Amino acid sequence: MQMRRLTDRLDGLAFGGDYNPEQWDEEVWKEDDELMRRSRVNLATVGVFSWALLEPEEGRYDFGWLDAHLDRLHANGVAVDLATPTASPPPWFTLAHPDAMPVSPEGTRLTHGSRDTYCLAAPAYRRAARRIADALAARYGDHPALALWHVHNEYATLCWCEHTAAAFRVWLRARHGSLDTLNEAWGTAFWSQRYTAWEQIQPPRATQWHKNPGQALDFRRFWSDEALAAYREQRDAIRAHSDLPVTTNLMLPGYQNLDLWAFGREVDLVSVDHYPAAPGVDAAADTAFGADRARSFGGGAPWLLMEQGTNTVYGGDRVLGKEPGDIARHSLGHIARGSEGALFFQWRQSRAGAEQWHSAIVPHSGPDSRVFREVTALGENVSRLGELAGSTVRAEVAVLHDADAWWALEVDGLPSKELDYHATLRRAHRALWDAGVTVDFAHPEHDLSRYRLVLAPALFLLSDAAATNLNRFVADGGTLLVQHYSGAVDERLHARLGGYPAAPLREALGIRVEEYRPLGRDEEIVLSDGSGATVWSESLRTEGAETLAAYTGGMLAGSPALTRRGFGAGSGWYLSTRLDDAGYAALVARLLDEAGVSEGFPGLPSGVEAVTRHAEDGRRWHVLINHRADAVPLPEPAHDLLTGGRVDRLEPGGRAVLRAH
Amino acid sequence: MQMRRLTDRLDGLAFGGDYNPEQWDEEVWKEDDELMRRSRVNLATVGVFSWALLEPEEGRYDFGWLDAHLDRLHANGVAVDLATPTASPPPWFTLAHPDAMPVSPEGTRLTHGSRDTYCLAAPAYRRAARRIADALAARYGDHPALALWHVHNEYATLCWCEHTAAAFRVWLRARHGSLDTLNEAWGTAFWSQRYTAWEQIQPPRATQWHKNPGQALDFRRFWSDEALAAYREQRDAIRAHSDLPVTTNLMLPGYQNLDLWAFGREVDLVSVDHYPAAPGVDAAADTAFGADRARSFGGGAPWLLMEQGTNTVYGGDRVLGKEPGDIARHSLGHIARGSEGALFFQWRQSRAGAEQWHSAIVPHSGPDSRVFREVTALGENVSRLGELAGSTVRAEVAVLHDADAWWALEVDGLPSKELDYHATLRRAHRALWDAGVTVDFAHPEHDLSRYRLVLAPALFLLSDAAATNLNRFVADGGTLLVQHYSGAVDERLHARLGGYPAAPLREALGIRVEEYRPLGRDEEIVLSDGSGATVWSESLRTEGAETLAAYTGGMLAGSPALTRRGFGAGSGWYLSTRLDDAGYAALVARLLDEAGVSEGFPGLPSGVEAVTRHAEDGRRWHVLINHRADAVPLPEPAHDLLTGGRVDRLEPGGRAVLRAH
Amino acid sequence: MQMRRLTDRLDGLAFGGDYNPEQWDEEVWKEDDELMRRSRVNLATVGVFSWALLEPEEGRYDFGWLDAHLDRLHANGVAVDLATPTASPPPWFTLAHPDAMPVSPEGTRLTHGSRDTYCLAAPAYRRAARRIADALAARYGDHPALALWHVHNEYATLCWCEHTAAAFRVWLRARHGSLDTLNEAWGTAFWSQRYTAWEQIQPPRATQWHKNPGQALDFRRFWSDEALAAYREQRDAIRAHSDLPVTTNLMLPGYQNLDLWAFGREVDLVSVDHYPAAPGVDAAADTAFGADRARSFGGGAPWLLMEQGTNTVYGGDRVLGKEPGDIARHSLGHIARGSEGALFFQWRQSRAGAEQWHSAIVPHSGPDSRVFREVTALGENVSRLGELAGSTVRAEVAVLHDADAWWALEVDGLPSKELDYHATLRRAHRALWDAGVTVDFAHPEHDLSRYRLVLAPALFLLSDAAATNLNRFVADGGTLLVQHYSGAVDERLHARLGGYPAAPLREALGIRVEEYRPLGRDEEIVLSDGSGATVWSESLRTEGAETLAAYTGGMLAGSPALTRRGFGAGSGWYLSTRLDDAGYAALVARLLDEAGVSEGFPGLPSGVEAVTRHAEDGRRWHVLINHRADAVPLPEPAHDLLTGGRVDRLEPGGRAVLRAH
Repeated sequence: MQMRRLTDRLDGLAFGGDYNPEQWDEEVWKEDDELMRRSRVNLATVGVFSWALLEPEEGRYDFGWLDAHLDRLHANGVAVDLATPTASPPPWFTLAHPDAMPVSPEGTRLTHGSRDTYCLAAPAYRRAARRIADALAARYGDHPALALWHVHNEYATLCWCEHTAAAFRVWLRARHGSLDTLNEAWGTAFWSQRYTAWEQIQPPRATQWHKNPGQALDFRRFWSDEALAAYREQRDAIRAHSDLPVTTNLMLPGYQNLDLWAFGREVDLVSVDHYPAAPGVDAAADTAFGADRARSFGGGAPWLLMEQGTNTVYGGDRVLGKEPGDIARHSLGHIARGSEGALFFQWRQSRAGAEQWHSAIVPHSGPDSRVFREVTALGENVSRLGELAGSTVRAEVAVLHDADAWWALEVDGLPSKELDYHATLRRAHRALWDAGVTVDFAHPEHDLSRYRLVLAPALFLLSDAAATNLNRFVADGGTLLVQHYSGAVDERLHARLGGYPAAPLREALGIRVEEYRPLGRDEEIVLSDGSGATVWSESLRTEGAETLAAYTGGMLAGSPALTRRGFGAGSGWYLSTRLDDAGYAALVARLLDEAGVSEGFPGLPSGVEAVTRHAEDGRRWHVLINHRADAVPLPEPAHDLLTGGRVDRLEPGGRAVLRAH
Repeated sequence: MQMRRLTDRLDGLAFGGDYNPEQWDEEVWKEDDELMRRSRVNLATVGVFSWALLEPEEGRYDFGWLDAHLDRLHANGVAVDLATPTASPPPWFTLAHPDAMPVSPEGTRLTHGSRDTYCLAAPAYRRAARRIADALAARYGDHPALALWHVHNEYATLCWCEHTAAAFRVWLRARHGSLDTLNEAWGTAFWSQRYTAWEQIQPPRATQWHKNPGQALDFRRFWSDEALAAYREQRDAIRAHSDLPVTTNLMLPGYQNLDLWAFGREVDLVSVDHYPAAPGVDAAADTAFGADRARSFGGGAPWLLMEQGTNTVYGGDRVLGKEPGDIARHSLGHIARGSEGALFFQWRQSRAGAEQWHSAIVPHSGPDSRVFREVTALGENVSRLGELAGSTVRAEVAVLHDADAWWALEVDGLPSKELDYHATLRRAHRALWDAGVTVDFAHPEHDLSRYRLVLAPALFLLSDAAATNLNRFVADGGTLLVQHYSGAVDERLHARLGGYPAAPLREALGIRVEEYRPLGRDEEIVLSDGSGATVWSESLRTEGAETLAAYTGGMLAGSPALTRRGFGAGSGWYLSTRLDDAGYAALVARLLDEAGVSEGFPGLPSGVEAVTRHAEDGRRWHVLINHRADAVPLPEPAHDLLTGGRVDRLEPGGRAVLRAH
Repeated sequence: MQMRRLTDRLDGLAFGGDYNPEQWDEEVWKEDDELMRRSRVNLATVGVFSWALLEPEEGRYDFGWLDAHLDRLHANGVAVDLATPTASPPPWFTLAHPDAMPVSPEGTRLTHGSRDTYCLAAPAYRRAARRIADALAARYGDHPALALWHVHNEYATLCWCEHTAAAFRVWLRARHGSLDTLNEAWGTAFWSQRYTAWEQIQPPRATQWHKNPGQALDFRRFWSDEALAAYREQRDAIRAHSDLPVTTNLMLPGYQNLDLWAFGREVDLVSVDHYPAAPGVDAAADTAFGADRARSFGGGAPWLLMEQGTNTVYGGDRVLGKEPGDIARHSLGHIARGSEGALFFQWRQSRAGAEQWHSAIVPHSGPDSRVFREVTALGENVSRLGELAGSTVRAEVAVLHDADAWWALEVDGLPSKELDYHATLRRAHRALWDAGVTVDFAHPEHDLSRYRLVLAPALFLLSDAAATNLNRFVADGGTLLVQHYSGAVDERLHARLGGYPAAPLREALGIRVEEYRPLGRDEEIVLSDGSGATVWSESLRTEGAETLAAYTGGMLAGSPALTRRGFGAGSGWYLSTRLDDAGYAALVARLLDEAGVSEGFPGLPSGVEAVTRHAEDGRRWHVLINHRADAVPLPEPAHDLLTGGRVDRLEPGGRAVLRAH
């Protein structure tokens, strides 16, 4: 079965968002049709939360209302991304299958009244999910409105129930083979935890003090695999009826407990939801972070921004509004990095329910609003970018990401709670973004030969294979930066003995860490090159590396803090502390220079984002976004695809899409 | 049955407090008698926590000990406020009726060992409570010591058990009639929450993410009604035996989940407990806030301060002492605002138990103490105020309070967690108190025609009827201030579409809010009139209103922040942000001026509290309290009821009660 | 049976630590042997977490592996401290005895996967613990490697299950005799809590508001007694087979819920674990605090530092490293105060498991490391201190400690949450340590006649017997300082009436506290002598005492804050607030002067710690530790036992052990 490409189906980039007509009446639907045409919407995600309507009682389906909406959308020129509704079972499901409700580590069984109230490992839930996915695909596999399948929504739940325990044991048997191997892996000789029968093993439920870290890590691996299995079951059910691409929308780092590399291999099209956590230029940088992740998890293939807010910035205990122009800037930020369009959650702001205050394309105040006008203008812009469809993005720099390393940094008993995996990756990405460099994420065991520079900011867990791979990367001419507390444990979470990091990586770096020494809260130290550092320090010895900066105080005075070793055709750098922003930026600049990373679009000042999309046939497009407060002249006047007119400068906040020569 | 008035029964204002003789022995009782006489106590609340003694095993009553105390009190000239002991079932009740113990949202069933360990919706509890109320009333309905009935104590508990679920469903059927109506009201189309059978509905128990806001709001409405039903059952049992007034002591805002307007209609006499949360002048302002609420909930009728501490200011993680004179100042603050006396919790500081450190009239250190001396002096003062009995207080300004709006501001998913309903009301009340104005609270659907100025500081939920009412108030000549995020939802918690607030209110205000834009934590902005603002901003358009102050930065620069519309014979003001203290005080002054609110007692500087009580026959009394650090001369010398002497000035902290000419 | 002394058995002080060979393989064991010899280890604690290996299924023991390790250690000259493994039952135990798993106050039953997963009151657990203790003692009672028995590890768990409830009721019957007495003690007349049957009494489980304080206090007393009973059962099982001393390692204050005076009476040798919570000189002061406690709980007898970290300072959310030399300074700090050696947790840093990042003698980086080199050097030092074995420490100053007072300060409903029992004791101890004085802890009912000065910093609960004892101490010539809120309650937690503290103590102090008045958060006041104070104030009257400093503001202006009364041959001081550091230091200096406390080692500047150990035969040794940043000359050159050479000055951070003349 040859997969049909989304953008072929749409004849251009995707524009639109989640559409929940079941919350409204016919009068509103009519206005929806008109407003969708006005704003050039061509793709609507339908059915995400429709289980209760589609299957009002167990096994009885009601598709009539959905038929009508799909026909209407199709008649209006809007294609459909049809979702399986499995992220929110209806209340009747709880009463029919109380054992399928999720249970907390403390034993509290949750109930309905929100969404995602199921245990992914419960057989009753899995059966029900497969069945409705199959029924939907059977009915709509050939519907002319269909363009994309959307399985579930933001897989993100965990559970500690007995079904989970049973599934966990099956997974552990497959991974470890024998109890002896498991006992060795988890270090159960400590604290008298030796298991003598599989049924003794439980999920990491509430216990007295620290939980076993090996068990905790394996539990997170298990859950990611379990979620992937649940996804695959639905995907396979759909594929039996349809040759359209299947996806599931992935979420912000940390929200989901998923190994996104594994998901990237199983979806036909990576799709992601993105909501920035800070306003202004931070939101733009966060957009790039999310977009580079999405592209990378799909192996560089085109992907899709499935959800964003028109006016939503999550600011902790409040939701901030976006600035005028952000709707366009963020959408183009995603498209620049490979998204095949820009979708929003949701089309029309809900009048009631848990997300009634979540922004939308048509806000409570209606189409006569700043938000709808900006979306409409953007729709026109995006409609002119059809030629970008299918093109991709190339990077010379990679930041390493490994879910194992992330999960390993969240077990009990680590020497510091200031070791935030994703914050550390964001920081590395941000420094590169500030430097105007396009970045991929890569797994430490990937082929890295396409990159000139690789950053490993938080590779606490380092497998033997990854160590060998990184060693080879450097030997072959790459520039590698490894940051503090990397390589401290292997894939079983066993400490690497004889000085961190692993032996092969030690070769590329020429150092050996004898002691980690967390710094105090609010403690700031100064290195010999004048840069400040916080959070962490290490006592290390060079074994072939040169010292670029040393510690200046305490027992570490004079000891190496930042080192570099020329190894083979490349160089291995090691940073044993957390530099302040200026010091880190300077280090990144030095690494880019050493690695010979080229500028993507020469002649622009810092603060102007420039990313290039490449077509297979050699065509290229530069997407430019000016984050500066002043206007920036272009090196030469050019045709701007967004407006169809000529452009010779970027206004403050302005953007342009230029064909490259 | 003609109700007997408390102050007639007492021949003056009430003075005394909770009396728990069961904690002491005969020697102490004798001293109590002497000290009560010395301090002119004329009312003692008895039996609040006596269930275990009154009914030592289920169905067997022991009244002998209580007979003796009531006779003794009566012989000593002390009348009795007799409580039903239902706020604290004895340990035997737990074992007999484990299903009547309360359950948390997570499913934890609480047990005894504190107080209030019952589910108000549990049939066994309700039966037991009715039975003991009936037994007490039957025995003491004619006791000569009796002056007042006191049902329960500070109704404040919630429960999520199966009894609760059953009662909640009954309540929902009555409110919504059909499941279709309920589904529509709660917006269950979102997140696939559609209910297809009543038994699927549960209390809002622990679930995965945000809870359904409609369900959460209805649950709080239900609980308030359930508490009221429990109160009414006891009240009716008592009325079958007695024509004395019945009350239940109401508590600080936020502690109880009650619609106090509804309770105000069902009690014969509003009574409240009051404990300030900050020392000094803040405590005095808080006293006024509590007293104005108490009076208003009773429709302006005389009410009673049932509990206060002699030396208790709740300061978060500590209990601060009061300042010398506070006992008198706070008591007079309440009496000034309509209280028929001043009672304390409790007569004698407990030697043991959970509240052994709660202050009392007779502290641990005994009668030879500052506290007892101050109370004794106050007792003499209060004994001279008998002529105030039955008089009331009149206000030209009202602050709107609606429990629905409060509960609506506490559901999941709102755009900011900085929207504190009661803090916002306190702030409005405080600005008026600082301006020396006497204030009522009013429900937004009340007849407001008696007021010149109405403030709606937090009317997030605005019913259609309330909108119409406010519109009429302005049209008829009133001055109305509506503050930010008001009118955003209707009584079903559905967002009002087409721009907040509701259409009719929009007419009176002449504005339309297109976007709410929470400000960042610690973000402070400046308006065009120089006042600072925090927490919140809105993008709004005037539609007939004039702009009094505009935003000055960001996308809102130049947009209206504070508006005024002349409408009919009145004016509607809208404030779309949270002004700083000075700006808010200036706005309030402007509103008072526009509304023509008169001064209660001319000629006094700010910082002197002056409130007037009015008798039906036209007599009036001014209660004056000087919160300033300097002495204040009176406009002319006068007779001070407190001392029975002439007074020509108020010392720092001093007070006087003057007959008005 | 004559007990054999540990140091006789070792022929010197103990040096070594926890040894968990079951985590490693034969190659590592061989290296262990060599490294133990190199670092002069002579004592290894074995078996602490070996239950799962020793009893792989219920009732079947496997001792072979342990035989081999004990034989090997013995052959290598290392004696063994053999532990019963009862602090961590194996997973099979959970499945066999689910009722023996601990339950939280909310009803959550914990499970295995950590350590300490048992209810100490569960019969199945107690049986299993006795049985394995007996089996170990039977097998190894005569093993030549054995030097010490180590029962359990850090008794620290609580439970609220039904077994606990049953045991609690038995304990309560024994303590109170009758329900009437219990009701009176707990003040159940308040809040209607009267118990009419023993089975109504439960552990203080989750309830609605404040828990009954008497119940809470008795529950903590009960648990301490229950833990002691569990310890005694194991000790007695061991004694049936062995005449070696038995101990259990005690932990940091607050971690364990134990009355350590009671444990001190039941162990043959007090042993403690010590981990400082702050780096630098604070860690040294904390070492002294822990060591003085350990010595005192054993009645002044030699004791043993069972665990410390080589590189572990618990800094809240992170684990900080120690400074170079700290290993030696902390070890000598303990030895100076009576420890019969210095042991570490653990010999070799675990490669896996919950404590894999806990520091060890042989770190992950191996023996070629700063840490192992420092330990090896220290091992040589300690090997030269054999002559100190059995000698003791004498103090002229005592700080009062009473677990009842600690527990009483942690019940619900106190007037301030800023009353931290152990922080207050630490502060008193630190002021004395800063002043260079050696300090004992003492129970308030102990014979205090050996002390010149006694500090009672936090004697909130004061028994009648203690009051009498303190009165006598002063009358007989002692100097006593009592600090704020002391003597407020008696042993039943009943408030003392008529003004705190208790009548007899009032005699010695000549004051009477009428009101306690907590200060606001961040409120600082100034006394008449210029010292600052925070947290607390009191309104008190002198009744025979002189006022040394008075309050200066608010209602307390002019009232006594610090008083002194000459009584009998001594003096009683009362401090009614919390002085700032300088003021408190000055007060302590004044008290030391008045009491005539002598200097231990004259001629040294402040910042040099000097403690003297005394042998029964009159020999004495001065242990000196220089915490200053500069070198300090000794009054005269001397022989330093640590190095075997002459020393005339102490380098910064340096230490010496000198024979006294």
